[in-house]
Amino acid sequence: MEMLAAAIAVGLGAISAALGNGLIVSRTVESIARQPEARGPLQTTMFIGVGIVEVVPLAAAVIAFLIVFAG
Amino acid sequence: MEMLAAAIAVGLGAISAALGNGLIVSRTVESIARQPEARGPLQTTMFIGVGIVEVVPLAAAVIAFLIVFAG
Amino acid sequence: MEMLAAAIAVGLGAISAALGNGLIVSRTVESIARQPEARGPLQTTMFIGVGIVEVVPLAAAVIAFLIVFAG
Amino acid sequence: MEMLAAAIAVGLGAISAALGNGLIVSRTVESIARQPEARGPLQTTMFIGVGIVEVVPLAAAVIAFLIVFAG
Amino acid sequence: MEMLAAAIAVGLGAISAALGNGLIVSRTVESIARQPEARGPLQTTMFIGVGIVEVVPLAAAVIAFLIVFAG
Amino acid sequence: MEMLAAAIAVGLGAISAALGNGLIVSRTVESIARQPEARGPLQTTMFIGVGIVEVVPLAAAVIAFLIVFAG
Amino acid sequence: MEMLAAAIAVGLGAISAALGNGLIVSRTVESIARQPEARGPLQTTMFIGVGIVEVVPLAAAVIAFLIVFAG
Amino acid sequence: MEMLAAAIAVGLGAISAALGNGLIVSRTVESIARQPEARGPLQTTMFIGVGIVEVVPLAAAVIAFLIVFAG
Amino acid sequence: MEMLAAAIAVGLGAISAALGNGLIVSRTVESIARQPEARGPLQTTMFIGVGIVEVVPLAAAVIAFLIVFAG
Amino acid sequence: MEMLAAAIAVGLGAISAALGNGLIVSRTVESIARQPEARGPLQTTMFIGVGIVEVVPLAAAVIAFLIVFAG
Amino acid sequence: MEMLAAAIAVGLGAISAALGNGLIVSRTVESIARQPEARGPLQTTMFIGVGIVEVVPLAAAVIAFLIVFAG
Amino acid sequence: MEMLAAAIAVGLGAISAALGNGLIVSRTVESIARQPEARGPLQTTMFIGVGIVEVVPLAAAVIAFLIVFAG
Amino acid sequence: MEMLAAAIAVGLGAISAALGNGLIVSRTVESIARQPEARGPLQTTMFIGVGIVEVVPLAAAVIAFLIVFAG
Amino acid sequence: MEMLAAAIAVGLGAISAALGNGLIVSRTVESIARQPEARGPLQTTMFIGVGIVEVVPLAAAVIAFLIVFAG
Repeated sequence: MEMLAAAIAVGLGAISAALGNGLIVSRTVESIARQPEARGPLQTTMFIGVGIVEVVPLAAAVIAFLIVFAG
Repeated sequence: MEMLAAAIAVGLGAISAALGNGLIVSRTVESIARQPEARGPLQTTMFIGVGIVEVVPLAAAVIAFLIVFAG
Repeated sequence: MEMLAAAIAVGLGAISAALGNGLIVSRTVESIARQPEARGPLQTTMFIGVGIVEVVPLAAAVIAFLIVFAG
Repeated sequence: MEMLAAAIAVGLGAISAALGNGLIVSRTVESIARQPEARGPLQTTMFIGVGIVEVVPLAAAVIAFLIVFAG
Repeated sequence: MEMLAAAIAVGLGAISAALGNGLIVSRTVESIARQPEARGPLQTTMFIGVGIVEVVPLAAAVIAFLIVFAG
Repeated sequence: MEMLAAAIAVGLGAISAALGNGLIVSRTVESIARQPEARGPLQTTMFIGVGIVEVVPLAAAVIAFLIVFAG
Repeated sequence: MEMLAAAIAVGLGAISAALGNGLIVSRTVESIARQPEARGPLQTTMFIGVGIVEVVPLAAAVIAFLIVFAG
Repeated sequence: MEMLAAAIAVGLGAISAALGNGLIVSRTVESIARQPEARGPLQTTMFIGVGIVEVVPLAAAVIAFLIVFAG
Repeated sequence: MEMLAAAIAVGLGAISAALGNGLIVSRTVESIARQPEARGPLQTTMFIGVGIVEVVPLAAAVIAFLIVFAG
Repeated sequence: MEMLAAAIAVGLGAISAALGNGLIVSRTVESIARQPEARGPLQTTMFIGVGIVEVVPLAAAVIAFLIVFAG
Repeated sequence: MEMLAAAIAVGLGAISAALGNGLIVSRTVESIARQPEARGPLQTTMFIGVGIVEVVPLAAAVIAFLIVFAG
Repeated sequence: MEMLAAAIAVGLGAISAALGNGLIVSRTVESIARQPEARGPLQTTMFIGVGIVEVVPLAAAVIAFLIVFAG
Repeated sequence: MEMLAAAIAVGLGAISAALGNGLIVSRTVESIARQPEARGPLQTTMFIGVGIVEVVPLAAAVIAFLIVFAG
Repeated sequence: MEMLAAAIAVGLGAISAALGNGLIVSRTVESIARQPEARGPLQTTMFIGVGIVEVVPLAAAVIAFLIVFAG
């Protein structure tokens, strides 16, 4: 049961990270293509957003590793 | 069963953080590309929104860590 | 079983807070980009909306903490 | 089982409150941005709608607290 | 099991009330922004609709309270 | 088990009433905003439709009350 | 188990009646707003359609009442 | 178990009848509003389609009644 | 268990028949409204398509009746 | 259990046949209405496509009959 | 259990074949209606695509027959 | 249980192959109809894509056959 | 249970590979049809993307084979 | 149960990697086709995004391999 819990934690974390970052990065790519001269602030905003999105999924991965090595 | 609970808590928290922040940040990136001179107030609003969105998912992660270390 | 209940409560609360606030904030960001001079009333309306949306998810988080510390 | 019931009640209530209010407030924000001079009646209608939407989710939260403190 | 039943009843009732009213009120807000002079009949129609929508969800909440206090 | 049945009956009934009426009323509000002089026949058609939609959900609520008081 | 069956029968019947009639009536309201002089044949077609849609959901409600009173 | 089977049969039948007929009738109403002089052939086609759609849902209702009276 | 199987068979058959035929007939109605002089070949194609769609759902209904009368 | 298997096989087969053929035939009807003089090759392509789509659902129906008569 | 496996295999295979081929053929029909003179290469590409799509569903049907005759 | 596993493997493989290839081939057919002179490179790209998509579903089918013949 | 695990691993891997690659390749085909002279860099980007997408699904297939041969 | 956990971990990881990268790469391909001269910064942004998206799915794959070799 512990392994299942680890799998669910890291799996949901992976889906959420992919969804959130995929949304942000793909929209940034599109915006750079439309407004190439605004590339600097767009990438800055993207990095901030990606960093914020990544916090809880990384916590999920950490919890999964904790369960695997402790289980 | 406790580990499963921790996994579900942090997993749902991760998904919600990614969804909410992904929505906000990607829309902000798009808006900066369309209106580069309004970059200041847009980022301010984004930071406020991201902070509000992040509250309950962080509580979910905290609960998950509580369960893991106490379980 | 109590831990599972806490996980579900805080998880659903997180998703709902993220969804509701993500919707409101991202739409506000978009509106400020389109109408920068209406920034004041837009942010006021956003704060009211975010506050109302946050009530029940916070209750969910409170219930989850109650269950965790009492369970 | 009682805790699970409380979690489901407050969780579904939170989702419904967020969805309903998110819909109304985000649409109001958008409408104010398009029609800034109609800000008064729009906010009045929003407050009425938000109040009506909030009734049953609050009942759900009340029921959840009842179950938690009685369970 | 009774508590679970109460939770499901009030939860589904809350979701349906939020969905139905959210749909009606947000559409009314949008219509007032587009046609500010038709504000009277629009709000009248909205109140009638909201009242009709709210009947069965309120019955759901009543049933939930009945179960909680009798269970 | 009877309580669960009552909860499901009234819950599904509430969702269906909200969905059906929300669809009809929101569309009527929109149509009145577009064609204010056709307000009479539109409201008449809306009342007929709402009445027809409400029949089976009300039967669901009646069955739920029957089960609660007899269970 | 019989009560659960009755709840499912009347619940699915309510959802289907609301969906089918909601679709037809809302589209009829929209059509009358666009073509006010064709109000007669539109309402006739609507009544025929609503009558046909309502047959099987009513059978579901009848079956539910049969089960409740016989169960 | 037999009652549950009858409920599922008549419930799925009701949903399918409502969906199929709702689609056809609402599209016919829309077409009559756009092309009032083609009302005859449109209604003829609608009646044929509604008749064909109704066959299997009615079989589902018949099977449900068979199960209820024999179960 | 046999009755449940019959219910699922006829229920899925009804949904598929309604979906397939609803799609075809509603699209045919729309096409006749747009091109009234092509009514002949359109109805011919519709009848062929409806006949082909109806084959497997009717087999599902036959299997359901077989199970009911043999079970 | 065998009857349930037969029901699932024929049910999924019916849904897939209805979906696939409904898609093809409704698109063909639409295309004939737009390009009446290309009716020949369109119907030929439709027949080929319908034949190919129908192969595996018919296999599903055959398997269902095999199970029913052998079970 | 073997029969259930065969039913799921052939059922999922049927759905996938219908979905894949329905997509390809309906898009080909539409393209021929728009570009009648490109009928040759379009049908060639369609046949290649349909052949490739059909491989794994046919394997699913083969596996289902294997299970039925061996089970 | 082994047969169920084989059925799930080949079923999910079939769905994925149909979805992936259906997407690619139908988009290629559409592109050839719009740009008949670019038929060569389009088909080349299609073959590469279809080959890559087909790898893992074929592995799924292989695993299913392995389970069936070894189970 | 091991076989079921292998089936789920390779099945989810197949779906994800098909979805990811289908998205990329179909979009590349469309882009080549719109911009035939940019065929080189488009295919290069496609190959990079397809390679990156394929990594984790291939790991899923490898794990499935490991389970099958070791189980 | 361990194998099932590994399968779920690597399966959800594969889906999330495919979804996230598919979104980013397909949008990049589209943007290069629209803005061929911005190919450099677009690919740079794509590589950054793909690298960030890939982190948690790779952790999921690592956890799956850990479970398989340790289980």
